[in-house]
Amino acid sequence: MKDVPAIGLLAVSDRASAGTYQDRGLPALRAWLNRALVGDWREASAIVPDEQPQIESALRRLCDEEGCGLVLTTGGTGPAPRDVTPEATRAVAGRELPGLAECMRAAGLRHTPTAALARQVAAIRNQSLIVNLPGNPKAIDENLAAVFPAIPYCLDLIGAARLETDPKVCTAFRPRHASTNRQR
Amino acid sequence: MKDVPAIGLLAVSDRASAGTYQDRGLPALRAWLNRALVGDWREASAIVPDEQPQIESALRRLCDEEGCGLVLTTGGTGPAPRDVTPEATRAVAGRELPGLAECMRAAGLRHTPTAALARQVAAIRNQSLIVNLPGNPKAIDENLAAVFPAIPYCLDLIGAARLETDPKVCTAFRPRHASTNRQR
Amino acid sequence: MKDVPAIGLLAVSDRASAGTYQDRGLPALRAWLNRALVGDWREASAIVPDEQPQIESALRRLCDEEGCGLVLTTGGTGPAPRDVTPEATRAVAGRELPGLAECMRAAGLRHTPTAALARQVAAIRNQSLIVNLPGNPKAIDENLAAVFPAIPYCLDLIGAARLETDPKVCTAFRPRHASTNRQR
Repeated sequence: MKDVPAIGLLAVSDRASAGTYQDRGLPALRAWLNRALVGDWREASAIVPDEQPQIESALRRLCDEEGCGLVLTTGGTGPAPRDVTPEATRAVAGRELPGLAECMRAAGLRHTPTAALARQVAAIRNQSLIVNLPGNPKAIDENLAAVFPAIPYCLDLIGAARLETDPKVCTAFRPRHASTNRQR
Repeated sequence: MKDVPAIGLLAVSDRASAGTYQDRGLPALRAWLNRALVGDWREASAIVPDEQPQIESALRRLCDEEGCGLVLTTGGTGPAPRDVTPEATRAVAGRELPGLAECMRAAGLRHTPTAALARQVAAIRNQSLIVNLPGNPKAIDENLAAVFPAIPYCLDLIGAARLETDPKVCTAFRPRHASTNRQR
Repeated sequence: MKDVPAIGLLAVSDRASAGTYQDRGLPALRAWLNRALVGDWREASAIVPDEQPQIESALRRLCDEEGCGLVLTTGGTGPAPRDVTPEATRAVAGRELPGLAECMRAAGLRHTPTAALARQVAAIRNQSLIVNLPGNPKAIDENLAAVFPAIPYCLDLIGAARLETDPKVCTAFRPRHASTNRQR
């Protein structure tokens, strides 16, 4: 099973973590990936409260111990004081990809003006790409549809496991000159 | 009058501050709010030169002493050396809302290519949202039309006073599940 | 020749710098500027590997010694570990213009979803504007077409030499009130 790509799914929510609310983020992430990806993948997941140290620790575990090339988070990206997912992501990651966040917010704005309030980031930790997504299942779908076409090539560039997508759901774009192991 | 929401208006301009130029930013902000808002609100305003310490001090006063849940600035967001409003805003605020700034610049770009030069930010200081706007009255209107629909819900989320808008001018969007005091 | 504006062109590429690959970035930048600009300009250029200290040093030389009001870089803006052009640019510059980067990525996204992976920045070092561009000639053209209309006015505002463009190729926008030496 060594070659099966691992994908990390992290729900950030005080209420889901306490069990007082049925998390809807992880099922939405899982369903989207099952539709969009071709071939096996292994899920590593967690639910944590809106506490920065616990989010950071879960992200480090998913990236470093579980070997996830892609980690998707759901929840905790808004302006409320308890929303700290972007801060936790920045704290464990080395470099940001502002274009992925801009692209997700622009996609959200086509549906609802409050998408402008999302503070979500996408950032790289070594050979892992972490992408913050909203908590709402519909917004998750809109966001993933907008940015996932760029994600497999990003994973290639940072040395993570190769993902293949079903073009009926999501056409992953890889530049033609990148078909071998050349990177730029 | 305790329940009347306070809104801070801050003009940043060397010339307006020195009285050698009639500020047009504050009147444009005031006129837009008077058209868009339903119900009473109380204005707290100031005009300061393009000096970072004075801008910071005015922002702190409007947020902390005047209790403004929303503070709108006008001017000082361009690339010129004296333009320091974004730096002052960042210095007094805890977290940025990059989506509001992106959304305002995208709206400006539909009218003029130099909107890409705006360095404006939106950021939260405790229970206050600070939004930088340009100095030009026409650009102020374009920017507010683009982002104001998201602002009342943002104020709800950070614990500021509730604003109601006139849907003929601006439809404030609040997610249905947010109609009580639940936040996420 | 004192009055001829100087423009810096910097190719960042391990392979082009080692001579194992014919750089295509500088010729694309040069060709675009020759089409778009009216009047003489002087080129100062360099090719460096993807090493942050060498990029920083080249940027400082182009800005400070060559007196370039505008410096365009090509290459090194992606998510791969060797891509460090944005980090080098930030390290030598004082303030960023996020709107120019957002505008270039949005233009790229109209052609290819992986434009969202570009980490390019635009930033000011004293009286010089540094703009990161991708390595691909087609993407360079798309990016310059998107942001160049705002660049001459930006150079005016920071005190760099005036550029004039050919409106058949690129209409530089200067607000009417800015026709004299007034800046805001």
